[in-house]
Amino acid sequence: MDQTFTYQQLLDFSTNIFKAIGCSAAHAAVAATSLLSADLRGVDSHGLARLTGYVRLWETKRVNANPDIRVIHETPSTAVVDGDSGLGLVVAPAAMQVAIDKANQVGSGWVSVQNSNHFGIAGKHAMMALKHDMIGIAMTNASALVAPTFSKDKLLGTNPIAVAIPAGNEPAFVADFATTTAANGKLEILQRKNQPTPDGWVQTKDGLPSNNAHELKEGGALLPLGGDREHGSHKGYMLGSIVDIFSGVLSGANFGPWVPPFPAYLPMPENMPGKGIGHFFGAMRIDAFRKGEDFKSDMDKWIQSFKSAKPVDGFERVIIPGEPEIESEKYHLDNGIRLPAVVIEDLQQLGRRFSVNIF
Amino acid sequence: MDQTFTYQQLLDFSTNIFKAIGCSAAHAAVAATSLLSADLRGVDSHGLARLTGYVRLWETKRVNANPDIRVIHETPSTAVVDGDSGLGLVVAPAAMQVAIDKANQVGSGWVSVQNSNHFGIAGKHAMMALKHDMIGIAMTNASALVAPTFSKDKLLGTNPIAVAIPAGNEPAFVADFATTTAANGKLEILQRKNQPTPDGWVQTKDGLPSNNAHELKEGGALLPLGGDREHGSHKGYMLGSIVDIFSGVLSGANFGPWVPPFPAYLPMPENMPGKGIGHFFGAMRIDAFRKGEDFKSDMDKWIQSFKSAKPVDGFERVIIPGEPEIESEKYHLDNGIRLPAVVIEDLQQLGRRFSVNIF
Repeated sequence: MDQTFTYQQLLDFSTNIFKAIGCSAAHAAVAATSLLSADLRGVDSHGLARLTGYVRLWETKRVNANPDIRVIHETPSTAVVDGDSGLGLVVAPAAMQVAIDKANQVGSGWVSVQNSNHFGIAGKHAMMALKHDMIGIAMTNASALVAPTFSKDKLLGTNPIAVAIPAGNEPAFVADFATTTAANGKLEILQRKNQPTPDGWVQTKDGLPSNNAHELKEGGALLPLGGDREHGSHKGYMLGSIVDIFSGVLSGANFGPWVPPFPAYLPMPENMPGKGIGHFFGAMRIDAFRKGEDFKSDMDKWIQSFKSAKPVDGFERVIIPGEPEIESEKYHLDNGIRLPAVVIEDLQQLGRRFSVNIF
Repeated sequence: MDQTFTYQQLLDFSTNIFKAIGCSAAHAAVAATSLLSADLRGVDSHGLARLTGYVRLWETKRVNANPDIRVIHETPSTAVVDGDSGLGLVVAPAAMQVAIDKANQVGSGWVSVQNSNHFGIAGKHAMMALKHDMIGIAMTNASALVAPTFSKDKLLGTNPIAVAIPAGNEPAFVADFATTTAANGKLEILQRKNQPTPDGWVQTKDGLPSNNAHELKEGGALLPLGGDREHGSHKGYMLGSIVDIFSGVLSGANFGPWVPPFPAYLPMPENMPGKGIGHFFGAMRIDAFRKGEDFKSDMDKWIQSFKSAKPVDGFERVIIPGEPEIESEKYHLDNGIRLPAVVIEDLQQLGRRFSVNIF
C-alpha cells in the first residue's frame, strides 16, 4: 500500500543506509540530501526509488563508499576532479564546490569530473551556486539509451543539463532537463499505465518510429529532443553530444557507448576508454559581469514579462523554469512524501538487511 | 538570373561596402569575413543576402561604423564588453578574442556583450577557439519571434547556440543551431516554395498548431525546439531563455520582448531596459583540463564511434556536427558561391550607390 512519510523520516533512513554501507557521517548526509531533493522536487524516478540501485552498485564494488575525491589537474578557473568511484551524490557537490571556490577567486569556475557514478538530479547541484549569487551549471553523461539522428545504435545517455540563475524578488530560474524528447521517467509512467507514447519519444531497434512505451526492452531507443530530423532531432543530438564531451571526454571519464549503466546487473561495456561516468559543473559570479542588484532587478523584469504573457486558451500562463519544483518542494515538506508500495517494500528489505530502523 | 561568383570577388565587394559606410579597413575585413562565412558554410540566410540589411541599420543610425569596442567590467576569467552599437560581425570576434585571451591566462574566459547588433552565424565565432586548442562557445539573443510554451505572445528570439570542439585527426566538432524547431531560414525556403511546414514549427496568433509557412506575417510565432509540451517544447523554451539571459541580462543588453529587430524598417520596442542586442562567448583551454593529445585522441574515438554506428535504412550514416558545413565550405571555395537574382540586384544597387565596383 502507498504510504506517506515525512521528509525527515526519509532523510534519516537514507542517511543511515549510506552510513551502513560505509559512508562517513558527512558523506552519508550529503548523499541522502542529494537523493531526497529529487523526491522533494517531484522527480520521483531519481529519488528514494533509486536507493537500492545505489546500494547494488556498492555491492558489485562499482561504488566506493569512502572515496578520496580530489582535484587532479587545475588552472585558476578550471579543474578536473577524480571522484574515486564515489557516489555521484557525494562527488557532484564536492566538484560543484570547487567550481564555486574558483568563481570566488577569478570570476568563474569550470570542473569536469571523471570516475564518478550517477549523481541524482542535475538541478540540485546547479542550485548550490544560487546562495553565492552565482549562476550554476550542472550536466552529466549516462549510459547509452539514445540513438543519434539516423542511427539504429544507442550512443548517448539522456544527458541532462541544469542551469540555475538567481533573481531578486522572484524565485530563481532553474532549468533542469534531459536532452531527449522525454526523460526515461516519463516513459516509465506510460509503461505502468500501459499507454502509448506520443510520436518522437522512441524508435524500434530498426530505427522506425514507434509509440510503444516498452520499446527499449525490445532493443529500441529513446530519441533526442526533437524526435526526428524534420522536427529538429539533430539539435537534441548535438546537445546530448556536448554534454557527453564536456562530461566524459574533457575529464577522462567514459563517453558515448562506453558509459557504465546504472543497474548493477547489466554488464559493463567492453574496452572502456575512461574512468567511471563523467560530469561537468560551472559557476559564474553575477558580479563578475554586472552589479548584482542590477542583474537581479533585470531578472525579475525578465520573469515578470514571461509570467504576464497572454496564455494560449486552456492554459493558465507561461511557466517559469523551476516554479513547479518550488511548489512541489513546499508541498512535500508540508505534507510529506508519498511512496508507492513497491518502493516501500524495497526500502523495508534494505532496512532489515542493514539493521536500520525503517521510519 | 542566378550567377556564381568567387569567394574572393564577394569578399572584396563586401569589404568595400563596409569601408564605404565608414568602417576602418581592419573592421571592414573582419565584418566581410564574418558575413561571408555564412555563405561558405551553406547558411545562405545569414550571409550576403543580409548585407543590405546591415547597411540599412547603419542608415538609421542603429549601427555605428566606428565603434569603440571595450571591456567595461572584468575579472580574470570574465568580462562584459560594450559593443558601442558596432556591427555584431565586428563586435563578436573582438569579444571572442577577449574570452580567448582570458582562457590563455587562467584556463577559461567568459564574455557577455551589450550594445551590439546581429553577429551573423554563431559557429564562425565559436570556431575562433579551435586554432588555440580551445573549446569555443557563442550565443546571441535576437528579436522576439518565438512563443514560449503556453504563450500566444512572442518573447524569445531564435537564440542560437554554437559549440566548437577540437579533435585530432578528425575534423572539429562544430554544433551551431537555433533553439527553435526550425530556424527562420528554413521557414523562408518553404515560403518561397509555397509549401506547408511540418507540425511543431509554427503556431497561429492564437497559439493554435499551424502548418502555414506564412504564419508569422499573420501574427503567429515560431515554436521552441520540441514544438509543443508533449514533444518537449518546454526544453527548447528553457534553452532559448538561457541564451537570452546569458546574452542579454548578464551584459545589460536588451532581453526577451525588448531585443531590437534586424529589419531597420520595423519600429524599436518601447521602454527598452538595456543597450542593443546581447551575445555571450566562452573559451576553455583543453589543456586546462587534460593533456591536449589525450583529449584529441579521445575526441577522434568519439567521432569514429558515432560515424560507424549502424544507420537507419535509407540513411548513409550518422552525421557529425560540422561535417556538412566543412563540405559546403570546400565546395564553395572551389566552385564559387551561387547567388539568387534578387540578391544580386540588391548588391548591384548597393554597389552603384556607394560607387563600389561590383565583382
